[in-house]
Amino acid sequence: MSKNRQLLLQEYPKDNITADSFKLEESDIPSIQDGEVLIKNIVASVDPYQRGILSPGPSYAEPVQIGSPMRLGTVGVVVESKAEGYEKGDFVNGFGGVQDYYVGKPGENLQNKLQPRPENLEDISKAMSVLSVVIGLTAYVGTKHILNPSKDSVFLVSAGAGAVGSLSGQIAKELGATVIGVAGKPEKLDYMKSLGFDHVFNYKTDDLKAEFKRVAPKGITHYFDNTAGPITEAFLQNAATGAKHAVCGAISDYNKEKPDGIRSWASIIKSRITITGFLVSDHIDKYGEFVQWAKPLVDAGKLKWSVDLREGGPGKYVDTATDLFAGKHSGKMLLKLNEFPQ
Amino acid sequence: MSKNRQLLLQEYPKDNITADSFKLEESDIPSIQDGEVLIKNIVASVDPYQRGILSPGPSYAEPVQIGSPMRLGTVGVVVESKAEGYEKGDFVNGFGGVQDYYVGKPGENLQNKLQPRPENLEDISKAMSVLSVVIGLTAYVGTKHILNPSKDSVFLVSAGAGAVGSLSGQIAKELGATVIGVAGKPEKLDYMKSLGFDHVFNYKTDDLKAEFKRVAPKGITHYFDNTAGPITEAFLQNAATGAKHAVCGAISDYNKEKPDGIRSWASIIKSRITITGFLVSDHIDKYGEFVQWAKPLVDAGKLKWSVDLREGGPGKYVDTATDLFAGKHSGKMLLKLNEFPQ
Repeated sequence: MSKNRQLLLQEYPKDNITADSFKLEESDIPSIQDGEVLIKNIVASVDPYQRGILSPGPSYAEPVQIGSPMRLGTVGVVVESKAEGYEKGDFVNGFGGVQDYYVGKPGENLQNKLQPRPENLEDISKAMSVLSVVIGLTAYVGTKHILNPSKDSVFLVSAGAGAVGSLSGQIAKELGATVIGVAGKPEKLDYMKSLGFDHVFNYKTDDLKAEFKRVAPKGITHYFDNTAGPITEAFLQNAATGAKHAVCGAISDYNKEKPDGIRSWASIIKSRITITGFLVSDHIDKYGEFVQWAKPLVDAGKLKWSVDLREGGPGKYVDTATDLFAGKHSGKMLLKLNEFPQ
Repeated sequence: MSKNRQLLLQEYPKDNITADSFKLEESDIPSIQDGEVLIKNIVASVDPYQRGILSPGPSYAEPVQIGSPMRLGTVGVVVESKAEGYEKGDFVNGFGGVQDYYVGKPGENLQNKLQPRPENLEDISKAMSVLSVVIGLTAYVGTKHILNPSKDSVFLVSAGAGAVGSLSGQIAKELGATVIGVAGKPEKLDYMKSLGFDHVFNYKTDDLKAEFKRVAPKGITHYFDNTAGPITEAFLQNAATGAKHAVCGAISDYNKEKPDGIRSWASIIKSRITITGFLVSDHIDKYGEFVQWAKPLVDAGKLKWSVDLREGGPGKYVDTATDLFAGKHSGKMLLKLNEFPQ
């Protein structure tokens, strides 16, 4: 291939992401300057936060500029390097975007080398899910550093079958806690059970307030919150004195112009709850510690995860993102941009 | 007087506190056993938390039992003592309730002796407001220990003209912060200005979101929250990265069966806010430190407070509480139960 396929943003989508917002174009493969690295993307990570950067308004990350390639995290292979520490054939993490090639600048859009070198696509999938910053480190920081449950803890996780939530619950189990997982579909409840969660509930059909009271009569001590909404409401009404609540996501609010609102605010006082909002980008320094902790568990099959790898290259980004937001996926969503190099 | 006027709870109020919920009765003055003290109440403290204990559901304190006198903090004078350390004529803090006389048990409903002995009603008012646990220590713990602003901080306080809020803002000024106070009436705004607050706003008439953005373009760093409701919403939308939010009260929710709800939940993530609910009862050990810090400022006239002392005895509790919840008061609300003894 001598051309660079790029998915360029044409206009900000109003509601859902659609093909009308993008244009697939071919351009020349870029050349690099001193200090830069030319990288060929292999796999892209498709995540909920990407809706936020497809909007001109303020978000916690810069919006994608009109005319630029859709921005997202990728794993790629170095094709040519004029930067110290990077050689042809190295695999790297970076914000490569939905395109075949990009110019990587170490410490900016090029993050780190994958070590050990991946031997196949499955190794890359692992690096982009369970051992990644956006999934693995997010679950680890929120669960271990912010909440830090122990064997007497009752740990609740919302969206407990999701990529981050399923890891958070497993980390809490490793730390000895009793884990309650909540999701919205029977098959997700089955998945959480298969991960060893102690109690699983469906927020669409179960009376969470009553169920939490039943399984945690002394109250829930820790809550990893991916959703806001009714699960958070039921937590606040069943929190133990001194409970800790980490706010990682609010997915039940993201597509609503006017969220329902959290009404049990006075419980924060009554139960002396501490609520901490966090972004993994503030905790990149803990990545080494996390890998050291998690990798032996992953290698031993003790920490489970699930990946939904879609084929099709840059032109399939919109379909992949659409399925993500519709919940038509099973595990961490990835898009293959190019074949694993032999 | 040879009788004990008591305001007895008849039924839990559904919404606002009304006279229908209580019955004023006269009974005999109680007699005491060994280890007990007979106390005549002089002044009662009327506070927002009392709505919470007039409800059969779980609160952070035991509900008042049907048929019992309305429970609240009082300062009284010892009439007769069979307990070590207490003599006739001592003034004491305790949970004396809305009645003329009560039987005090040291360490239970009888808390401590007032030292030095108050010489008049004003000394009692001071002990029940600026130097009290429920007002002074609450403001101190939330402002100094939980939030701890410094000279680069932008400190917001809701109900900033209230008993706790006005002290919180002054403590934050003492610590060097720029202080924004919010209340709901022009005269309250004037009062906050007179205390040296840098910016004052009326949540009923000002566009808080826009005003906060104007006076704190880099965001609000600390928030002492007495109210929940629209002030909290505007804070969440204007919080600086890493802002701290202490939740002391939620007065805008207390009388609502279904509170409006906090809708800007995702801001907790975006701005990495830490929210801490607290009750002063967990921090009684800091009372000595607080008095050492505050008393010189009070004596020097640097820390200002305001008391709204209502006359009328036990039968006037409902009117006093009604005015408190309607905001028809100016300063710490007290109810005189009996004359200061000559």
